[in-house]
Amino acid sequence: MRRSGIWIAVGGSLLCASVFAAEGMWTLDNLPKARMQQETGFTPSTAFVERMMRASLRIAGGCSASFISPDGLVMTNHHCAASCVAQLSTAAKDFVAAGFLAKRREDEVRCPEIELNRLERITDVTEQVKRATAGLNGDAYKQAQNAVQAQLTSACVGADKATLRCDVVDLYHGGRYHLYQYHRFTDARLVWAPEKAVAFFGGDPDNFNFPRYDLDVSMLRAYENGKPAHVVDYFPFSKAGAAANELVFVTGHPGSTQRQLTMAQLNSVRDLQLIDGLLRLAEKRGVLEQYAKTGAEAARVANHDLFSIENGYKALYGRLQALLDPTLMNQKQADETALRRFVATQPSLRDKVGPAWDAIATAQIALRRLELPYSMLETGRAFDGHYFSIARMLVRGAVERSKPNAQRLPEFNDARLPSLEQTLFSTAPIYPAYEKVLLDLSLTKMRERLGVDHPIVQQVLGTTAPDQLAARMIDATTLGDPAVRRTLCDGGLDAVTRSTDPFVRLALALDPATRALRKEMEQEVESVVQKNAELIAQARFLQQGTTAYPDATFTLRLSYGQVAGWDEAGKAVAPFTTIDGAFARHTGAEPFALPASWLNTRPRLNPAQAMNLVSTNDIIGGNSGSPMINRRGEVVGLIFDGNIHSLGGAFGYDKSSNRAVAVDSGMLLEAMNKIYGAGVLADEITAASTGGAALPHP
Amino acid sequence: MRRSGIWIAVGGSLLCASVFAAEGMWTLDNLPKARMQQETGFTPSTAFVERMMRASLRIAGGCSASFISPDGLVMTNHHCAASCVAQLSTAAKDFVAAGFLAKRREDEVRCPEIELNRLERITDVTEQVKRATAGLNGDAYKQAQNAVQAQLTSACVGADKATLRCDVVDLYHGGRYHLYQYHRFTDARLVWAPEKAVAFFGGDPDNFNFPRYDLDVSMLRAYENGKPAHVVDYFPFSKAGAAANELVFVTGHPGSTQRQLTMAQLNSVRDLQLIDGLLRLAEKRGVLEQYAKTGAEAARVANHDLFSIENGYKALYGRLQALLDPTLMNQKQADETALRRFVATQPSLRDKVGPAWDAIATAQIALRRLELPYSMLETGRAFDGHYFSIARMLVRGAVERSKPNAQRLPEFNDARLPSLEQTLFSTAPIYPAYEKVLLDLSLTKMRERLGVDHPIVQQVLGTTAPDQLAARMIDATTLGDPAVRRTLCDGGLDAVTRSTDPFVRLALALDPATRALRKEMEQEVESVVQKNAELIAQARFLQQGTTAYPDATFTLRLSYGQVAGWDEAGKAVAPFTTIDGAFARHTGAEPFALPASWLNTRPRLNPAQAMNLVSTNDIIGGNSGSPMINRRGEVVGLIFDGNIHSLGGAFGYDKSSNRAVAVDSGMLLEAMNKIYGAGVLADEITAASTGGAALPHP
Repeated sequence: MRRSGIWIAVGGSLLCASVFAAEGMWTLDNLPKARMQQETGFTPSTAFVERMMRASLRIAGGCSASFISPDGLVMTNHHCAASCVAQLSTAAKDFVAAGFLAKRREDEVRCPEIELNRLERITDVTEQVKRATAGLNGDAYKQAQNAVQAQLTSACVGADKATLRCDVVDLYHGGRYHLYQYHRFTDARLVWAPEKAVAFFGGDPDNFNFPRYDLDVSMLRAYENGKPAHVVDYFPFSKAGAAANELVFVTGHPGSTQRQLTMAQLNSVRDLQLIDGLLRLAEKRGVLEQYAKTGAEAARVANHDLFSIENGYKALYGRLQALLDPTLMNQKQADETALRRFVATQPSLRDKVGPAWDAIATAQIALRRLELPYSMLETGRAFDGHYFSIARMLVRGAVERSKPNAQRLPEFNDARLPSLEQTLFSTAPIYPAYEKVLLDLSLTKMRERLGVDHPIVQQVLGTTAPDQLAARMIDATTLGDPAVRRTLCDGGLDAVTRSTDPFVRLALALDPATRALRKEMEQEVESVVQKNAELIAQARFLQQGTTAYPDATFTLRLSYGQVAGWDEAGKAVAPFTTIDGAFARHTGAEPFALPASWLNTRPRLNPAQAMNLVSTNDIIGGNSGSPMINRRGEVVGLIFDGNIHSLGGAFGYDKSSNRAVAVDSGMLLEAMNKIYGAGVLADEITAASTGGAALPHP
Repeated sequence: MRRSGIWIAVGGSLLCASVFAAEGMWTLDNLPKARMQQETGFTPSTAFVERMMRASLRIAGGCSASFISPDGLVMTNHHCAASCVAQLSTAAKDFVAAGFLAKRREDEVRCPEIELNRLERITDVTEQVKRATAGLNGDAYKQAQNAVQAQLTSACVGADKATLRCDVVDLYHGGRYHLYQYHRFTDARLVWAPEKAVAFFGGDPDNFNFPRYDLDVSMLRAYENGKPAHVVDYFPFSKAGAAANELVFVTGHPGSTQRQLTMAQLNSVRDLQLIDGLLRLAEKRGVLEQYAKTGAEAARVANHDLFSIENGYKALYGRLQALLDPTLMNQKQADETALRRFVATQPSLRDKVGPAWDAIATAQIALRRLELPYSMLETGRAFDGHYFSIARMLVRGAVERSKPNAQRLPEFNDARLPSLEQTLFSTAPIYPAYEKVLLDLSLTKMRERLGVDHPIVQQVLGTTAPDQLAARMIDATTLGDPAVRRTLCDGGLDAVTRSTDPFVRLALALDPATRALRKEMEQEVESVVQKNAELIAQARFLQQGTTAYPDATFTLRLSYGQVAGWDEAGKAVAPFTTIDGAFARHTGAEPFALPASWLNTRPRLNPAQAMNLVSTNDIIGGNSGSPMINRRGEVVGLIFDGNIHSLGGAFGYDKSSNRAVAVDSGMLLEAMNKIYGAGVLADEITAASTGGAALPHP
């Protein structure tokens, strides 16, 4: 891991302008409190940490959020709720372009697919998991691990399937296994979303850049039993927003970092995940860009995927640059060499842990062989779009649900089925013309990458061209209708095997071969890596003590940092932007066109209002929508991005330039009150803030 | 360089099935004759080598070709003449799809842009070039080098501008400078081209693969003074074609290898040329694929670029895989370490050559900084399409032609102007709707990569979106008309500066900044690399003696090898495919649809006729269109590709799997006689073959 250097001590005062920076995405049950006290003069109280946990939310698709009122009002990013905004839109009424506001609660509209999870309890199950897999290898190891996880999560969920979700999470690459119990909010309704033009002002060119001028916010409301959920824990709002050099906390669900991988794994990440991933995204981006130019409705339909692709492309490109940087890679190599040397000197570790790196390297050779067919056929990348994914869920679900819980593929565990059904029965529209574009491209890539003579390519395409097959299948399928999906799901294996739907037939036909691929991947790669990464993690505990934090795994983390700019090639970047800066950047042409709502209300706005800000918090994708909290426990910002240097954060934190990017809380209130006529919403938030919610100063 | 291991001695007999393989792309004035005799039992005679030289041709755009009759008939690949076939096509008459055959000589049609070059003379000018640049650095070095090259080439061309071309070529990265004098054939006419469906049967999926079934051939005829050129040196044709294990020679113009680069340079190649290059191609590919789906005419117009992109993409991807291969890179590192160690032990080299590697590494840091703005703005990648390229030629040409020859940018030397004019005044059609797609995309990428706030991005786009600007400029330009170009060219600097054409205005406006970028690149990168690569080349001569061959530089080379398959993951790949294999692969759907001409004549064809074959010859892109010659000096094949393993050949030759792919000469005759009604052409070739052209057996 790239070391972030020594913290600059700031004494008791935070007025000092020295940047302090905190590497680390800490689990809430293992905060480095002594270190925090020493470095920042602040130790979070138990009440502070508990509120952090229970006012924070996870959006099942891969974002963060938080409660900001006792009536279940939820703050997240526009881009985290964008799929809902798009799904509620039609050709006639496009909320992505026009924005959305529910003036009254009865106008709040349910999002077809959004599920919110609130972490309730963390239980250490390391011993149970390790006991279940002790002495096993390959398939037996994987089966035992699946079984113990199914059993633990099933017991954890109990009869409360509708409102509880439980996951066994793997921390420190198998160093620890924890059981996370979440409360599920499955009825999330859209309350407010500004126009995408200002939510994503600057578009792809400005993405991951700063200075920045985005109002990347959406408000949802959690409902239970048809009524706004009443919540005890929520974050009050700071009207003043953040101050330069202020200590700030970010809670949220960073998706994935790879700071503890071996060199062999990093090379796989570079070649398979990043280079091949980028090339795939680049071509798909080109296809969708050009498709979007064929008409307004095509543009509207492709818009959401295009955003995801551009965002993902830039993130992967930044990560790749980090792995091509000899300074970082030499440091990684030195760290690995040091740990291996440490292992070689410890009699208790030498024989047990010593061979782990070579075992992982051997698994990477298998990974390089398997990754392409696996991702194409088992992950389903060869059959892009909604239909195959639905068909696969129906086919696999029918088979798996007939087995005892402990023997199922993990994604069909009892504990996971409710979330799966939320996706399967979604009423979000599917656009056949657009699906044809996706399927044509992905079938073409399957043929290109696996080769014309690959038996599955032959089986799927026969003598048909990809565009012909895509058109024929999509013209014939009825899986676009949620009622058809429900009938097939309820009918079980019998209904599925009798179905004549071309996607169901395809998923059925491929099932044996793709399950075999999955088994091969589990035996030769996953179980080998897991077992050996566990061993390395244990050695790292012995080397580094308990001061280490685990790689991000989409579990709740806290990062502490400071509002601060950075030095870009000798030029200081200030930590705040203001409203007048947004107007200065406005050209009138996409993606630099502020919406009419802003242009019309400009005279009433405070030009000096802080708009976006940067801080040293250590975050990564998945933290989007995270609240930025001050030492009083109040929201001062809404995280929506990192700067370009934060992308290498996947592999190591660099305090000199890695910055999180947020919308200032004052900006949110200014926009609600003056631009969007959402004063009622602003009042709900500020009333909550002046109520009993403030934490005592520790 | 990756060593190909020791040659397997085959004694006097070639019946032995042991594969022998010859690493090396040899210049014709330095063939390793003793080694050839020892390894193959064959020493090429002077007559053999001279015919090799004068029957071989270079196509100025980047391909190889050869004379195959005394009446100037030229054989090359379909994909080498594809731009001509496309340029002669219209929406109403598409020769790319339908093929082309001139039944009589008066039906042969001039290609708008094809120029053929025949090498006449090689002169060693190493001393003159080195004397001119001795003791100079940076800009002075570059200026002196340009001046001496302008003077040498100008003297070499003399008054024969119309028919002579001279280049100073840099071999062994500055170890040697040679003056190459070519005869120019500027009137090349299309004689025969089969349908693209069979020329590129299998399309992108089968590209760089084998078994293969392509008839990748075009025939042109060189004309002089309006009549077929009479040539003394041409290759007779073998009706029998090639035999397994036979010794075969390939002459041609391999474009570029990087076998002698330093590690620091290889890392730049990997990151800038390959990774960034692939990402650029992938997105453009997606855009053009989707554009081509908007209609038949769009497909026809985009077809040629799409082929180039797919071909280039696959080639770069193969090269990248080689540079990500730790085995190759470790070998490269070991070779470099050994050479540096050798230098350190030689008192004559230590101080002079020792620092060369670090100097080149420092230049790579500058390259990484400069490459993006340089390629965008000076290379013109930000302004994709024909118009900017034409405008740049006009603007720069007007300025440069007013200077003395020795002081011009090298591409405007007197010796180069005729070829430049061939391009500038081409009558090939330009399609404005398509140009808009290219320009929109490239302007978008300029903004993305250089950043919204880059001064030139601001200067070019202002408050206009890329698609708006592209449409506005292309609607206003008149550079699509060759007459307008000629008037501007003839009018010189005065006409150009008075022009209101938006592309001319843009090229004028950017000229100072882009020339400055070029100067910076020349001073900080090119001249540093050239000077220091020269030093390393000298050390390598001392280390390896004269047994080394220079990296490919689009100069004429000879490779010797053997017709042989290879072992693919434990499975033997046979060296030949046959006509019946093509029919077995026919599905009727693109790109596996044989044309009607084949389907209709199938009963008359010899199903066992060899179609394509592979050999161990060491070739690379640029060798397309090369003749494959047997020891009697007869054409047995037409090189059109390499297998997937040949792509890593950019960095090192691996005899175990690197194979060249060719069309069998018997297949060409079978097709002309039985499928295309081109018996007259076949007769011309075979008559020539049975005439006085056969070489005495050495």
